[in-house]
Amino acid sequence: MTSSPMTAADIQAHLDASPFIAFLGLHCSELDAEAGTLAMTMKLRPELERAAGTGQFHGGAVASLIDTVGDFAVVMVVPGDVPTINFRVDYLRPSTGPHLLGTARVRRVGRTVGVIDIDVTDEAGRLTAVGRGCYGVPKV
Amino acid sequence: MTSSPMTAADIQAHLDASPFIAFLGLHCSELDAEAGTLAMTMKLRPELERAAGTGQFHGGAVASLIDTVGDFAVVMVVPGDVPTINFRVDYLRPSTGPHLLGTARVRRVGRTVGVIDIDVTDEAGRLTAVGRGCYGVPKV
Amino acid sequence: MTSSPMTAADIQAHLDASPFIAFLGLHCSELDAEAGTLAMTMKLRPELERAAGTGQFHGGAVASLIDTVGDFAVVMVVPGDVPTINFRVDYLRPSTGPHLLGTARVRRVGRTVGVIDIDVTDEAGRLTAVGRGCYGVPKV
Amino acid sequence: MTSSPMTAADIQAHLDASPFIAFLGLHCSELDAEAGTLAMTMKLRPELERAAGTGQFHGGAVASLIDTVGDFAVVMVVPGDVPTINFRVDYLRPSTGPHLLGTARVRRVGRTVGVIDIDVTDEAGRLTAVGRGCYGVPKV
Repeated sequence: MTSSPMTAADIQAHLDASPFIAFLGLHCSELDAEAGTLAMTMKLRPELERAAGTGQFHGGAVASLIDTVGDFAVVMVVPGDVPTINFRVDYLRPSTGPHLLGTARVRRVGRTVGVIDIDVTDEAGRLTAVGRGCYGVPKV
Repeated sequence: MTSSPMTAADIQAHLDASPFIAFLGLHCSELDAEAGTLAMTMKLRPELERAAGTGQFHGGAVASLIDTVGDFAVVMVVPGDVPTINFRVDYLRPSTGPHLLGTARVRRVGRTVGVIDIDVTDEAGRLTAVGRGCYGVPKV
Repeated sequence: MTSSPMTAADIQAHLDASPFIAFLGLHCSELDAEAGTLAMTMKLRPELERAAGTGQFHGGAVASLIDTVGDFAVVMVVPGDVPTINFRVDYLRPSTGPHLLGTARVRRVGRTVGVIDIDVTDEAGRLTAVGRGCYGVPKV
Repeated sequence: MTSSPMTAADIQAHLDASPFIAFLGLHCSELDAEAGTLAMTMKLRPELERAAGTGQFHGGAVASLIDTVGDFAVVMVVPGDVPTINFRVDYLRPSTGPHLLGTARVRRVGRTVGVIDIDVTDEAGRLTAVGRGCYGVPKV
């Protein structure tokens, strides 16, 4: 893992430029290119609830957090346009607000694909979902 | 596959009651419990774009469509509360508007889990993404 | 989908050259490059049972069948060395002998990856497992 | 995670009783029920090679190792018969002998399903594949 010229602020600028990610309100909270980890938070809003008043995120919002933080973990290592090839989400518990934290960890970024693990935890630190994504690596 | 007492209108009422699904604007367009198929459409709106002006849905919106139509395909067969256990999404092409169609097909609904395949096509009928989900089956 | 110069006999020769696949005893039973489908059979032997005398294949043998027929479905379309990037298996029922049939269907083969669906059925035609694989596409 | 009455020797006895696992030659090398980790080794033999003389395991053997160690990680926590519901394998590098080590880590074992991560490393400690499995939990 080589250190990257990208900062959390750079990634935040990309997040804010995407209408769908802006709707989710993702915030890049941690970036450690040496360690291969990247984290984002997502704050509960009524529009993100699975059912009104539950205080629980819809699974689609959780999946979107997973896909996005996994994608930018590759961008952090190899800057450029990174398409998601596929990903898997396992839901372990209801994802309750007020915030979720999605933490991506690079398992391997090769020449053509990158494989990233993403853990989602709630404010109490409980693991609510896990993701694993495969992404296309930009040509350097 | 036994026929179900649920109609497309019943499922639409569930969709509209979820704030996140209402944001996505999913519309239940086809239900055939005998055949084990269920379809929903999603209309492009600026908030669903991956990047402004591209006319392409963000992958998180596509994943949310897949998860939702897969989930309700189980509900169609065994009415009740159906948690997503896990799902996988493979993106095959950019998902371009103005509409996407997500079509779920029941592969098997057993006593504890249901496995559903979901194809996503654009208005030209091109396959843009495929999903496969595993869902908990309500106790009858 | 363009037609391929590979025949079922060509693929069988590749299968027989792999010690692990030869152990499994896979037989290429159908190839239709135009339709994008490829099928292989696997015969139950005592060494492939999950528990002695059950008449049921071990899940690892089923997964190996899925991976192999999916891989050669890409080879059928774009001849060359095709690495598996990742795959998913869902087990729907016990996989009972005397034979299993694994049928691969090309969902899309692009420039860098191919996505293949694989259905596994027993002699009674019951679906016992489904696979979905993502494979690297050889440079033409 | 509660401590389990199962020992590595108990699990080894189960492995040896399965014809297919006995063919693979899996050896239970580490069990820590408190930590939720379980490890098995697989030794390269000519019959497990993807191509003769490569010194590399076939991906189906690697997938079988992943499925098996993940399954027994659930057994370790909740003894009984544990069916694999589904699993995913991502191949990161060729899996070279003379031994592979598959290490399972419990992410969550709930009332109905358990989710397990499995890392596969070669003798040099390089990560060659990662698995994630979902298993049925025996009724206590």
